[in-house]
Amino acid sequence: MNVLQEMLAAHPQPAANNEGLGEAARHLAACSQVCTSCADACLAEPMVADLRHCIRLNLDCADVCAATSHVVVRQTQTDPTLVQALLNACLTACRLCADECSRHANMHEHCRVCADHCRRCVEVCEALLEALPSG
Amino acid sequence: MNVLQEMLAAHPQPAANNEGLGEAARHLAACSQVCTSCADACLAEPMVADLRHCIRLNLDCADVCAATSHVVVRQTQTDPTLVQALLNACLTACRLCADECSRHANMHEHCRVCADHCRRCVEVCEALLEALPSG
Amino acid sequence: MNVLQEMLAAHPQPAANNEGLGEAARHLAACSQVCTSCADACLAEPMVADLRHCIRLNLDCADVCAATSHVVVRQTQTDPTLVQALLNACLTACRLCADECSRHANMHEHCRVCADHCRRCVEVCEALLEALPSG
Amino acid sequence: MNVLQEMLAAHPQPAANNEGLGEAARHLAACSQVCTSCADACLAEPMVADLRHCIRLNLDCADVCAATSHVVVRQTQTDPTLVQALLNACLTACRLCADECSRHANMHEHCRVCADHCRRCVEVCEALLEALPSG
Repeated sequence: MNVLQEMLAAHPQPAANNEGLGEAARHLAACSQVCTSCADACLAEPMVADLRHCIRLNLDCADVCAATSHVVVRQTQTDPTLVQALLNACLTACRLCADECSRHANMHEHCRVCADHCRRCVEVCEALLEALPSG
Repeated sequence: MNVLQEMLAAHPQPAANNEGLGEAARHLAACSQVCTSCADACLAEPMVADLRHCIRLNLDCADVCAATSHVVVRQTQTDPTLVQALLNACLTACRLCADECSRHANMHEHCRVCADHCRRCVEVCEALLEALPSG
Repeated sequence: MNVLQEMLAAHPQPAANNEGLGEAARHLAACSQVCTSCADACLAEPMVADLRHCIRLNLDCADVCAATSHVVVRQTQTDPTLVQALLNACLTACRLCADECSRHANMHEHCRVCADHCRRCVEVCEALLEALPSG
Repeated sequence: MNVLQEMLAAHPQPAANNEGLGEAARHLAACSQVCTSCADACLAEPMVADLRHCIRLNLDCADVCAATSHVVVRQTQTDPTLVQALLNACLTACRLCADECSRHANMHEHCRVCADHCRRCVEVCEALLEALPSG
């Protein structure tokens, strides 16, 4: 068990799906870091002027993943309406970032790693959306 | 002009609607602070056990408004798909928080102020959504 | 009164200095937005390659001001040790950002506005530090 | 290698100490999640009124660790003055949170896990502080 899974298992009203949720939250939090790092690496590239769109999407994705990772980790009286809307936004941010990063993945290893991690987060968001109680 | 409107007017590719956007971003950033403050005030109330749902929604709303305020303030190569999805999430967070806070607005002045500000942010999000280029 | 001052006045154990604190928190939250906006405007400049250090410091300052604005707005059982350490970090971030932005304030109006706002936040942090109960 | 270590190794000007830095940033980002989760679990406890100080410190620690995790992951033209001040604030936040959580670690497993993780982050901050170029 990772530390977030331990935390979720210790909640007074534990979720049905602690392990999946803990793993998902861990990926989303890591994605915020990965995108922050990719924006920073792009900024240091000699061809930074060609990486503007990438940096913009990295920064947005970092913000949205950070917020989403906090919201999904909370288990006290969750409202699925907000979780659903936010996961949709997060999935969109991760998909846009993955698409843009993969355009220069051949040239920049940091963009390849970032694209891969964002794609995995799209799947994480999709799995969490499917597991939501249907409204 | 507030300081954000000054910033947006000075962007190399200024948005068509700097003044509205600057005012909207200012409200969203303030909402993150207001909700953080409401969660903190609820926590200090003698009846904190009855305010769990309010605190939960305050914390979520603070996170989502912070992310949204950053994303909407960026003007470099904006992708409207993400802005739209995130404004929908933000509108949902503000509406849920406003509804819950207004339930104890008579008893707690901080919840009344928070409910009012969240309602105003719902309108801010709706106005920004209407101004988006239709996909 | 701005909305944060209203919130702080409604806290069950209001701080001695609600008005100053509300105004300070408002400036710090605005600074996170201003620095986010300056990083974004720098990114769109033709000479982005010369603005790397500015963008880096903008992004750091945005992160630190956001965290600080949340911590100082909380009034429930505050520990002055953390507030002090964090205000020192925030003051450092704002000073570095102001110094760098002012280097190209003549060329970029967004850097001039950002430098001015960051300088004001240095003063805000200094005033809050002075008002802390001495350890 | 974890994904952050991969990112840092791919930076155009990689840090001398990628592996340690990537591991440190991963712990700090996880700490923001762990503290968010502990605040949420405390909120759901029947004895929430006795956990106010813990929740307050959890929320502060989550904010400071999130900001710190972003700042330390950036490698482009780093200013050690800010990193040092922020690591001091982060170390303080983690220590206060660990101390408070450990007071009810016997009763609340989530506080025990959180205290352990915060202690580890104190060590992480200390190690990063030692590795900074002396000013």
